[in-house]
Order: sequence, then C-alpha cells, then structure tokens
Amino acid sequence: MQTILKNKNLSPADIKKMDYNTLNELCDEIRGLLIDTVSKNGGHLASNLGAVEFTVALHKVFNCPKDQIVWDVGHQCYVHKILTERLDRFDTLRQENGLSGYSRPSESKYDAFVSGHAGISISAAYGLAVAKKLQNDDGYVISVTGDGAFSNGEIYEAMNNAGRSGTKLIVVLNDNGMSISRNEGALARYLTHIRTSRGYFKAKNVVTKALGNVPKIGNNLIRAVSAVKRSIKYKIYDSNIFEDFGFEYLGPVDGHDLETLCEVFERAKSLKKPVFVHIDTKKGVGYEFAENNPTKYHGVSKFNKSKGIGASGESFSNVFGKTLTNLAESNNKICAITAAMCDGTGLNPFAEKFKSEGRFFDTGIAEGHGMTFAAALAAGGMIPVYAVYSTFFQRAYDQLIHDAALEKFHVVLGIDRSGVVGDDGETHQGIFDVAMFKTLPKVTVYSPANYDDLIRTLPMAINDEGIVAVRYPRGKEDELSAQYKTQNLSGDFIGTGNDIIIVTYGRLWGEVLEALELLKDKNLEVSALKITKILPIDKNNIEKLMGYKNILFYEEGIEKGGLGESYCSILIQKGYNGNFKLRGIRNFVPQAVMKNSLINLKLDGKSIYNDIIDIKTDR
Amino acid sequence: MQTILKNKNLSPADIKKMDYNTLNELCDEIRGLLIDTVSKNGGHLASNLGAVEFTVALHKVFNCPKDQIVWDVGHQCYVHKILTERLDRFDTLRQENGLSGYSRPSESKYDAFVSGHAGISISAAYGLAVAKKLQNDDGYVISVTGDGAFSNGEIYEAMNNAGRSGTKLIVVLNDNGMSISRNEGALARYLTHIRTSRGYFKAKNVVTKALGNVPKIGNNLIRAVSAVKRSIKYKIYDSNIFEDFGFEYLGPVDGHDLETLCEVFERAKSLKKPVFVHIDTKKGVGYEFAENNPTKYHGVSKFNKSKGIGASGESFSNVFGKTLTNLAESNNKICAITAAMCDGTGLNPFAEKFKSEGRFFDTGIAEGHGMTFAAALAAGGMIPVYAVYSTFFQRAYDQLIHDAALEKFHVVLGIDRSGVVGDDGETHQGIFDVAMFKTLPKVTVYSPANYDDLIRTLPMAINDEGIVAVRYPRGKEDELSAQYKTQNLSGDFIGTGNDIIIVTYGRLWGEVLEALELLKDKNLEVSALKITKILPIDKNNIEKLMGYKNILFYEEGIEKGGLGESYCSILIQKGYNGNFKLRGIRNFVPQAVMKNSLINLKLDGKSIYNDIIDIKTDR
Repeated sequence: MQTILKNKNLSPADIKKMDYNTLNELCDEIRGLLIDTVSKNGGHLASNLGAVEFTVALHKVFNCPKDQIVWDVGHQCYVHKILTERLDRFDTLRQENGLSGYSRPSESKYDAFVSGHAGISISAAYGLAVAKKLQNDDGYVISVTGDGAFSNGEIYEAMNNAGRSGTKLIVVLNDNGMSISRNEGALARYLTHIRTSRGYFKAKNVVTKALGNVPKIGNNLIRAVSAVKRSIKYKIYDSNIFEDFGFEYLGPVDGHDLETLCEVFERAKSLKKPVFVHIDTKKGVGYEFAENNPTKYHGVSKFNKSKGIGASGESFSNVFGKTLTNLAESNNKICAITAAMCDGTGLNPFAEKFKSEGRFFDTGIAEGHGMTFAAALAAGGMIPVYAVYSTFFQRAYDQLIHDAALEKFHVVLGIDRSGVVGDDGETHQGIFDVAMFKTLPKVTVYSPANYDDLIRTLPMAINDEGIVAVRYPRGKEDELSAQYKTQNLSGDFIGTGNDIIIVTYGRLWGEVLEALELLKDKNLEVSALKITKILPIDKNNIEKLMGYKNILFYEEGIEKGGLGESYCSILIQKGYNGNFKLRGIRNFVPQAVMKNSLINLKLDGKSIYNDIIDIKTDR
Repeated sequence: MQTILKNKNLSPADIKKMDYNTLNELCDEIRGLLIDTVSKNGGHLASNLGAVEFTVALHKVFNCPKDQIVWDVGHQCYVHKILTERLDRFDTLRQENGLSGYSRPSESKYDAFVSGHAGISISAAYGLAVAKKLQNDDGYVISVTGDGAFSNGEIYEAMNNAGRSGTKLIVVLNDNGMSISRNEGALARYLTHIRTSRGYFKAKNVVTKALGNVPKIGNNLIRAVSAVKRSIKYKIYDSNIFEDFGFEYLGPVDGHDLETLCEVFERAKSLKKPVFVHIDTKKGVGYEFAENNPTKYHGVSKFNKSKGIGASGESFSNVFGKTLTNLAESNNKICAITAAMCDGTGLNPFAEKFKSEGRFFDTGIAEGHGMTFAAALAAGGMIPVYAVYSTFFQRAYDQLIHDAALEKFHVVLGIDRSGVVGDDGETHQGIFDVAMFKTLPKVTVYSPANYDDLIRTLPMAINDEGIVAVRYPRGKEDELSAQYKTQNLSGDFIGTGNDIIIVTYGRLWGEVLEALELLKDKNLEVSALKITKILPIDKNNIEKLMGYKNILFYEEGIEKGGLGESYCSILIQKGYNGNFKLRGIRNFVPQAVMKNSLINLKLDGKSIYNDIIDIKTDR
C-alpha cells in the first residue's frame, strides 16, 4: 500500500521533487495513515482529512522552515507533521513522550508557533512576519486559519493590525463550513454566501464572477457600462470583509484540487502583501464515517476503523447536560451557553429541547463574549449557565471579573475538563480555573468527585447568588469515587484519630480512597477530608484541621494560587503548628494517559500512600 | 447661565417634553457643566463633549429605564448621568462615595450594565435584549459603542452572534475617528472611507451616496444602467461590514444634529431587528482646548478651565517610556507594543523615535492580540516589550499562558497602573496581576517602589529569559520611597532584632517607611523586608524570615492568590511557628484618592504602625 511513505524521513525537500501525479498518490497514502493512526491513538480526524491536499501544496510551494506556517488550532497539522521529518514518530502521536497533537516549536523547527487554542494564528503569523521584516529575512509566513476561528475576536484584532501594515503575510482560510460543530454565526453565513455566489477561483481568472454577472447589453452601451463597471469594481472589491481589513483576496479555491492550490499559493506568494487565500475543504473527506458525521469525528478516542466510533458512554459532561436539561424543564429562566462545544460539554439534549424556545446559545469560539453575554442575561433576569472547558475559560478572566463579579450578577459556570485532560496535553490542561476563581472577592465553587456530587451541586448552584461555578473532570467518574456518597458537601471528614489527615477535592478524592485502601492493613490512624464546596473556604474545616498533627493537601490544579495556599494562609495565621505538606501542580503537564499524568505529578493513590508511609518512617 | 439645569432632578421624562430649541439650549448648558465638573474633579472630557447631542436625542426618543442603554466604556456616559436623576450629585463625580465615572447598575436603575473595559457593549446589549425577548418585554436595548471598540475582538464575537439572531437591538456607533488616541487600524481607515464616501444620512434619504455616484449618462441608457444598478445595489449593500454581520445599517449621521439624530433613532426603533446607527461626532466639541487636542483631554486630572491642562510631571509611566527608549537605542531587537495607550503608558518618546523603523506597535484596544503578537515577535528573534495597564492585562491571561509561557518565549511586560488607581475606581483597579503571574510555572516579576528601582530593573528584564514583568503603580513615586536606594533587589532587609518584620513590595514600601518613621520613638525592634524581584520567590528571604517571631506581610493586590499566600505556604511547610499576619486586598476597591484607598484598605503607613502597636500591646 504505502510506497511514498516508506521514506520515514519525508521532508519538504522531497515534496518539491514530486510531480502532481505522485503528490496525488501521496495524498491517498497520507489519508490511509491518518485513519490508521487516529483510530489507534485517538486524536483529530475529520479536520486533518480535510487538510491533506492544501498542506501538501503548501510544502510544494513554500520553503519551510525558512518560510513558516502557523496553524490555528493545530488539530489540523497532522499532515504537516508527516511531511516535516516526523513520519518516523507519527505512531507516537498524542502518546506520552510522543508527538504532540498540536504544533509546538519545542518539538520541531518546522513548527513556527504553538497552537492549542483557537483564533491566534493571524496575530502570531503577523508577529513572525514583522520579525522577519525587521531582520531583513525574505521568508514568507503563512497562517492556516479555519473558518471557525472567525467566530473568535482575536482574529479581527489581528486583521485590523496586519491588514493596514502592508506586511508580507498569507492567510489560508481553510473553510470547511463548520467550526468544531456546525458553525452558525453571521460570518459563517457570509462565508457560505461568498463560496456559493462566486465560482471557484482558477489561476489567471482575476475577474470575479460578480463582475461577470453584470447583465449583457448591446455593443453601443459598452463604453458607458464600462465606466459604471469601473465605479462598481471598487465597490465589489470593497464588498469583501477581508478586503475591508486591507487584505488582498484570492478565492474561493477547491481545497482538494492540488494543482490549483499550488497555482494560487504561487500567486499569493508573488503579491508580497497581506493576502487571504480562501479555500473550500470538506471535513473528513476520504473516510466515509467521518464525511457523514464530521462533528463526531472531530476529536476522537481510539476506535475500530472498519466499524467507526460506537456510542460513547457516560461522562461528567453528559451527566451535567442531562441534569441541566431536567432542571430547565421546571425553570424557564434557565438558559445554556456554550462556546462552540455543544457536544463536548454534553449540552446536546439541552439544545434539542430548548433551542426552539431561544434558551440555548452557541457563541462560537468566543469565550469572552460568552461570559459578557451570560452576565447580561443575568442582569436581565435570566439564569445563564455557561458550560466551558477549563482551559478555554482562561479567555474570559477579565469578563468574569469586570462584567459579572463586580455587579454580583448570578451566573452559573459549568467548568468542564478541569484538572488534567490526558492526551490533548499541555495546551489543554484545565489547571488554572481554581486559581482564577479564588481571586474573586466573592464566589462559590463546587468541585464534584463523582456524578452524584455533580447532580446534587448543580441545582444548588442554580439556586444560589452571584458567580457560582461547578467544575468537573474530563471523562468518567472513577470506580472508588463512584461508590462514595458524600455526606457533607462543605467538608466530609472520614477516619479516626488526630495524627494524619489527607485533604483534597474533586477527582483526586478517588486517589485518596485508593491510598486509604492501600493503608488499610498498616494500622495507622489516617483521616481524610473531602471538600466539595471548595469556595468560600469553610471555617469549620479550618477549625477541625487545626487539631491534626499532619496535614497533607493534594490539589489537581496549579499549586501557586491554588486552594491549598489559602488553607496555608488561614492556618498559619491561626497559629497552626503541626506539619503541613502541600502538593499541587508545579509545571505545565505534558500529554499522557490521565492516570499516568497523576502518577507523574505524584498525585495518584500510590504516591499519596507513599507520602504517608514517609511521614511515619521519618519519625 | 444655567436655566434648564436648575432642575436638579432632571429625568428622561423632562427631556421628552422639551422642543428642539430647548434641547439645543440644554446641550449648551450641559457642555458648560461638563467642563466645570471635569476641570474640578478630573475625568473624561473630550469623549463626553462629543456625546452631548446624541445622548439627549437617545433620551428624547427612547424610554429609559424600560429601554436600556449600554455604554461601551462608560467614559462617555456623563451626559447620560446628568439626564437620569443624578444631576444633584454630579459634582461628586469620581469622588469617594460619589458618582462613578462609568455606568454601574448598582448606582442607578438607568445604568443597564457595567462599563469600565472596552468592547463589551454589543455582547451586553445582546444579552439584555435576549432576556427581554424571553420575558416578553417589548423594551429596546441600545448599545453606544465607540469606533475605538472596533479594534477589540469581542465586538466581532458579539456581532457574529447578534447579527444572525434577528433580535431587536440598536448599536449606536459613536465614530469620532479616534479611539483614545488616534485610531490607526484597518477598520478605522474603513470607517473613514464610509464617512467620507457617503453623504450624511438624512431621514427618508435611503439611497446611499455611493449609488448616486454612478456616472450620469444619457436618457437612452437609463434602463440598461438601471439593471446594472439593481445588480450593483446588492453588492453595495453587501459592502458594508456591519451588514455582512447581519445588521441593518443607517448612516452616517451628523452626531451633533439633534433633530436628525432623533429622526434616525426613531427609524432604527421602527426596524425591530439588529441595526447599526453610524454617527459622526467630534471629540471635545465646545471646548477649544479639547477640540484641538482631544487625546490630551481624554482622561484628565483637575485643571484650570480657562488655561487648559499644563505640562504633566514625572510619573512611573514616563520613566518607563524614557528608560525603554534609551535601551532601544543601543539594542535594535527591542520593540514596544501598546494596546491603545501610547500616551498613558509613556511610550510617546519611543513611538517618536522608532515608529519609522517599524519597532513601535499600537494594536488598538486588543490586549489579547497584543500578547500573542508579542510572543510571536519573540519567537521570531525580537525582544518585545508590551506596556499595558494591569486591569486591561486581565484580557490577555490565556494568551500569556498559552502563547507565551508554554514555549518559554522571552516577552517583557510593562504592567502600568498596578495596584490601586484612585478615582477611576473599581473597574480599573490593578489588583489581579500578581495573582495572574504567580500561576505561571516560570516567570520573573519585578515590582519597583520608586523610579530608581524601575530604571534598574527594566534592563534586567530585557536581558533575562522567558516571561519577565515589571509592574509599577499609577502616578508618581512618593517622597519617602524616592529617597530610598534599594541595596538588594531580591530582598532588602533593614532594621535590627528578630522580633517583628514587615514585608512588602512595590509602592507600599513608602507606607512601610512611613510606619517606621512613626515607630521611631517607640523603642521597638522592628525590621522590614523590601522585595523588588517578587517572583520567583527568593529562598534567602524565606530562610531569614524563619528567624522572626512576628511577620507582617502587606500586599497592594488581591490577597487570595497573591504573593503573601505563597510565603505562607512555604513558611508553614518549613515549620515556621511564629506569628504571621497577612493583609492584602479582600474586595473590589471603590474610587477614592489613592492614599485614601490605602487608608480604607488599612495598607497605609498609619495602619501598619497600628498593627505593630497592637502586637506589642497584646502581650
């Protein structure tokens, strides 16, 4: 099957030597490899299947790494990785110590910028292009930007800067008509309008179809109409939003026609100014399952490639979505908001039920706007529930403070994928949300350890006041946690004696239970405190903790700024004079299976057990 | 002079009864009052002088508070305050316990949303409008959005959502052709193009000037050309970016022509869908000094109204700007970036010198893009120095983590107006930056107490690696700090004995020196630690602090998540068993003169002195 891909050190230099026939064969082979690898390792499939031809064309036309490609959300950069001296390691994609699923300069000289969060590619490409200009480097910088990114504001901030600059910069707009799920914004509709009203760009065909549409009229009118045309031309030229921002526009181009793509990229190259190349791609092309359901095949776990993905099981996200949907049936003030993650946050059932009532909102990749919008819904008397991944919520920190917290608006936040997230890796870890929330003068935060906690706390959040967040991990509850029924959400103390107490919240409770299991036959007096309502800090917890000789606090979140430090601060000021040990996350967390991440961070049950044995041995 | 404004309880109901002559007189009186009040209290002058007529027109046409006005950056909302039952308190503007300089729902039922940070008005107005729709409230929501806000991405995120929604929503684009200083983005150029190429909108004049521009041709051609026109019309309609986002567009309108404004607002009202009303205003109109130099009269301290503003004295911002300019002369890698605050951050001399070399960048109100752009400049081999107000930097938290810190790019941050900021009040306090920086696994942060510290640390920041921030307060160094020469930037210990030590960083060092002065004749052994390089935490500081019986830690920043908590965490884990007292900021900080804010927060010299006396008295 694979002949071209036998060269495990494939590089852009090899691509340049190939003719179009060979390149088309290469594209087929790459598709096979993508399906094989992603079905084994999990990852992003549909977007990469759509990116095959234009990525090959980019490497045919441009000269990387002197020329630099910036990927907007690197989940479309697998083909680029295959073509840039990483084919030999492609089977390690998203594995511990393997290739990242996103572009990372620290991984390869061919990766010009980091790319886990959307909307940054034009800002980054413009910065790189300016740096080249200032250093008299005549290389090109190309950003590859999905249409979904155009729901994100930073793209416009960057266009507003780059467009007027005259800097040599090429933006490839990879328009697959979807963001992650169906792209519904006004701009998406606008792009569709462009795609459908103009014919495909063919090299040397400058005259836009729109101009060609001017009605045919008799010869004797031609001169007059030509004058009109000239005056119109500017208007039509002007009518394109990319041109409004000062970019030259080329397109739309069939994103799977390798030869035309190469020609258009050559043309873009020749212009030496800010250019948009609008290409029309199809997500999932070449794999029937993905073509038919690209949303499902966006980000996937490993699956059987001949059968496709089966039904997905229960997860915190699904439980959140179902619980919220139930609550919303008896409370018509409840609205749900997602930032392009309807499926991921489990809001599908809510959307199905309440979209027609106008109570469901997908903002696109617009976390900042989502937060302001939620605050305003609250100001207007509704109860907004904003479900958002912890890592992306970093985009809304200012809006959280300024738009929501200052005026004490009641906004409920469903912070999904809080804590470590597994193979998405460093760019996607949800380790900063507790630190963010903690800085608010007034906030309530719940951190469920299992579905039962989540089901119980979500209605409390909805009936509370001010900012209330419920944060829960990616994936499923673990078995030990699932069996645990929380008695006191403010602070559940278990065990006896006053020697050692383990304190934690959220998913780590399962690890604590594991540690307690391991300690069972050691005849030690070990207690544990499970905190579910983590903010505000419960005074009763503090009072009780004062009585323990050893406190071990574990936190699946950044340690500096995390909850543990506040416990330290309160305890030290109360004159606590036992031993306190705090372990949270101290560095960015590389990709690994979730449990392995916890082991690497020494936040797993066995490590907690070892910490306790160490304390007893040190005496 | 003032006749209409004698009614100190002026409300929208009064406006509705007035005829245009009276309203025009009212406008004159308001201008006089604005100049009087702002010259006495400081505040935003130029923007409010430009907003007089359209604000009066809004209250003539709409019915507040049932109809709601959302102000984008409330620094243009003074006229609104005057007209909405707050005239009696207008002299308390920006004073402690007085009217806020921004719109605040907690202040008045007429203030629909909070408005300190730019770019949020369409998001907020859309949220309020949706809430109305869901509750069958037929009121209108109007956002007043300056052209400067169009350099901010959230505006586009909101347009992308609101435009397609069909929701009844009116956006008044207050286009004064400047953001805070001169607006330079592509969109600004685009707006200028619209303003200059279309004649002013007059009620009932739907035909745009652009269409009228189609060349005059002989009668016998009219029919053919009409057909062309029809085909063009859609294109022209389409050519407007607001319409691309799904809004109806009305304008441009002379923003100082009260009668036309009222007619256009009536028209907008009748459309019952998302509408843009583009009005052309002149900043500073009616006060010659401000008209001639609107940037200077944007945000001002009190001044002599017949003489205008004098030369401004030295400040941390100016020292920063001059120091950076000097450094950049001998290092051509240094670039400077500001987000619409060239003047405010003291970068004017840098801009003057290096703009022509392409080393100065004003991103507009685009803090997120600014951070990504800076990271990319660094990735490309330059040394970016991004000067940004602490409060606005909250907009760039995700970009700081994801775009800059993950790949360890060397970006220098000048965090201006860190700490309390005085009369701008709650929305603008710079109290979260240390907490934000602290969560980064690797970061260096300097917090100068005086100009000398700033001058010494900025070059260190530039020559360092990774993320390095230098954060400094608004305004001038205080006298006591100014006289102090820091010996050790990592930790300067002064005083004798091991009983009490006061620890702080940044501006509060002046307050500590004041406390020490007050304590001079008390015959107490009091030491003090001045930390200038606050992150990473210096081990030597910890070692020495372990030896003190009482540690008092003061922090001009949010306490939960601040530096003090990390000291607590390290000390408690090392077994510190003395007394620790931490005082930082525990709530949002209302407007007041800066020193009064410190007094209210018990972070001033006298309060520190009292804390120490308390400790000695308790024994």
